[in-house]
Amino acid sequence: MIELVGFDGDDTLWHSEGYYQTVHDQFERLVGAYVDLADARLHERLLETEKRNIRLFGYGAKGMTLSMIETAIEITDARISATDVQELLRLGKEVLSHPVELLPGIREAVVEVARNFQVVLITKGDLFHQEAKVARSGLADLFHRIEIVSEKDEATYQRVLGEFSLAPVQFAMVGNSLRSDIEPVVALGGWGVYMPYHITWAHEMETGLAGEHPRYMDVAGPGEIPAALSLLQSRKG
Amino acid sequence: MIELVGFDGDDTLWHSEGYYQTVHDQFERLVGAYVDLADARLHERLLETEKRNIRLFGYGAKGMTLSMIETAIEITDARISATDVQELLRLGKEVLSHPVELLPGIREAVVEVARNFQVVLITKGDLFHQEAKVARSGLADLFHRIEIVSEKDEATYQRVLGEFSLAPVQFAMVGNSLRSDIEPVVALGGWGVYMPYHITWAHEMETGLAGEHPRYMDVAGPGEIPAALSLLQSRKG
Repeated sequence: MIELVGFDGDDTLWHSEGYYQTVHDQFERLVGAYVDLADARLHERLLETEKRNIRLFGYGAKGMTLSMIETAIEITDARISATDVQELLRLGKEVLSHPVELLPGIREAVVEVARNFQVVLITKGDLFHQEAKVARSGLADLFHRIEIVSEKDEATYQRVLGEFSLAPVQFAMVGNSLRSDIEPVVALGGWGVYMPYHITWAHEMETGLAGEHPRYMDVAGPGEIPAALSLLQSRKG
Repeated sequence: MIELVGFDGDDTLWHSEGYYQTVHDQFERLVGAYVDLADARLHERLLETEKRNIRLFGYGAKGMTLSMIETAIEITDARISATDVQELLRLGKEVLSHPVELLPGIREAVVEVARNFQVVLITKGDLFHQEAKVARSGLADLFHRIEIVSEKDEATYQRVLGEFSLAPVQFAMVGNSLRSDIEPVVALGGWGVYMPYHITWAHEMETGLAGEHPRYMDVAGPGEIPAALSLLQSRKG
């Protein structure tokens, strides 16, 4: 029996990736003033820097900002002006202070799920920024616990389940990333409700999961989450 | 009766502030090439930027690096070269990857304290960096729980105590910051063991605590921690 349901934060409860992509677009425009856009593979090089730096920075907007500055200096052969570096700092701060906009219907979905299960928010990224977003979301009171983690892998989910003294089979995770929300939970023997968001960070696209799977379901939006959990629950029985 | 003892991480278990101060010195040397060092109040201005940005960045090396770049651009009226900005990025990465060196005798002190109390590590800062330091320290297994928090105030300590179902009077905190480790715990009705470190970040110097206080004790080093806890325990009785 599923007893605990985890919800992801970014792009599951509230919009997030759009802010990052807007900043990436502005980054390309800014750096594009120095180099030939057709040759520069700006987006790929930024993603490469971000991936290389993750082992040192972890996830989040501060690391992204540092990676943008690093990439901009490299791509322009250090010709970028300090004023433009200042603009990159400003873009990073904009991501850190953007308003939290909930996905339509998500509050109602969490309330409904909380009638039948314990609910916990499990979100990845920068501790300080995620706490600020949780606070601004107005959803904190709906959750029994809020876990901000540095990586969403099997070890992390196992630690969280340990804190609740639950086995994986008693846990379902709801989120928009197959890589971070669904795959590790299903691998442990838990359940997944996959709610794709219309844009996904390239890094989160890497997953070994594909096609139909008895332990997770796709949903089209928040309104379908409660029924999907009931359905998974019934597969169990 | 004290049942739970919290240990701070940076400059209590392992050396930290020295790495930040080395980077601050290198920052001053680098920016000093552009401005008159006597007039520029470099250190004060960096500290001002850091304090202003804390509400957006929180604590940690990534925020410090962004604040260094911001300050350097401001102080030089945007004359700083991209190559020097790159050097600031390198300094920030150095702080994030420095080896973890334990304070002499601290492992033995934690082992000794763990004979009589539950012990928990409560450390403030960047989630990813702090997790990396805990892992590198080799001390993780000594603690019943590791709490990485964004701010060490009364609300945070109350939340942690709630997770252990303990009252403040059952809790003592060991650390090198009166502001973050001792004052909020004592204010709640708990106990403190204050172990000053030879250098302290200016931000942590701001405290309302002064002089003798029946609920906390100073110790000269790790070897004195177990006896200080026994002494506080006896004051209680």
